[in-house]
Amino acid sequence: MMDKIAIEKKVLSENDKLAGSLRERLTAHRILCLNLVSSPGSGKTSLLEKTIAALNSEFRIALIAGDVQTENDARRLKRAGGKVVFPIVTGGRCHLDARMVTSITDQLSLDDLDILLVENVGNLVCPSSYDLGEDMKVVLISTTEGDDKPLKYPGMFLRSSVMVINKIDLLGSSDFDMATVKQNARSINGQLIMFELSCRTGAGLAPWNQWLGEQAKRKRSR
Amino acid sequence: MMDKIAIEKKVLSENDKLAGSLRERLTAHRILCLNLVSSPGSGKTSLLEKTIAALNSEFRIALIAGDVQTENDARRLKRAGGKVVFPIVTGGRCHLDARMVTSITDQLSLDDLDILLVENVGNLVCPSSYDLGEDMKVVLISTTEGDDKPLKYPGMFLRSSVMVINKIDLLGSSDFDMATVKQNARSINGQLIMFELSCRTGAGLAPWNQWLGEQAKRKRSR
Repeated sequence: MMDKIAIEKKVLSENDKLAGSLRERLTAHRILCLNLVSSPGSGKTSLLEKTIAALNSEFRIALIAGDVQTENDARRLKRAGGKVVFPIVTGGRCHLDARMVTSITDQLSLDDLDILLVENVGNLVCPSSYDLGEDMKVVLISTTEGDDKPLKYPGMFLRSSVMVINKIDLLGSSDFDMATVKQNARSINGQLIMFELSCRTGAGLAPWNQWLGEQAKRKRSR
Repeated sequence: MMDKIAIEKKVLSENDKLAGSLRERLTAHRILCLNLVSSPGSGKTSLLEKTIAALNSEFRIALIAGDVQTENDARRLKRAGGKVVFPIVTGGRCHLDARMVTSITDQLSLDDLDILLVENVGNLVCPSSYDLGEDMKVVLISTTEGDDKPLKYPGMFLRSSVMVINKIDLLGSSDFDMATVKQNARSINGQLIMFELSCRTGAGLAPWNQWLGEQAKRKRSR
């Protein structure tokens, strides 16, 4: 098993280098980059659909939709008004890496962009180890998944800057407790910025969109 | 990257050997072994709680609860009446492997068991590649995750024998369509045995428990 661990370290270190270059390049172009991570079905694509609808007129947004299989999410994002949308089909691999994202950004005209939103593969474990050159990781958790998830998958919550709690319209349909999930998340990462929202009803989307817009403006003015 | 792929193949081939030995040993002792896989929060632990309650008096059941971090699930299973419960904390690794399971079964008195239920790490990608010596993989999907999941994570649905659709009490609270999820799953794996149930309300649990009991009796009588 030492072989495997040594190789993993090498792969991660190569990824970190590529991600570092990508981050420099995106920052030189003053592009805000977010890496959205979560379990399958927490609502990453739904949140991006709503975000595009709200911010498309004010910002130039590119989207990368990663999936193990199918380009369904990329199609959904295009239908939602996404102007620059690229799928990445990993073909079985459990996470995006910096090389995959770079292969897309190499095709983009970076001077014409304000925001790059990367939707990672649905997986609460592996994507936490792979830097994609983003400014921040945003971890989604839905109220139907249980309030214990930050404790059981701490790596992702530790390495994320933002936690979005989705599906608040379903609060009360399980024993998910909002105070408990926040306390659990803070016990892992006291710096987490938190949003509560429902992509279905639209509740709570405004503060998220406003925050994201502010981050993009801040990056643009640097 | 060839290095990494070569190492992965070696690791998988070593795992397959260990899993093969474990399968032989479990079969020699006529123990039914199921490997439960799903996204985080689909309800693996909840289903096992209900299963123990229903089958504990008729069968001798051992449970292995795998998690990236915490022994919470093992504690829940003990509280639910589990008599032989072992946690496996992977400490960041994204799946169980045959070595981890063997390290538990080596501690068990296999003559005194009928059923071994293994709850894998919540991850719809990586655990599909790791044989644990089970008779069958059982993949859970909850109605809140979206009916497109079999298409987006085909490996898991291809390698599972059973699909349990949980949280049917929440049908109607999203655009999840039961006919669509089944059609999507069958397009990946036409042999899937399917159950629809709600661990919360108890609906649909009886056919699952009955089926599981029958599988155990069939294995015992071989």
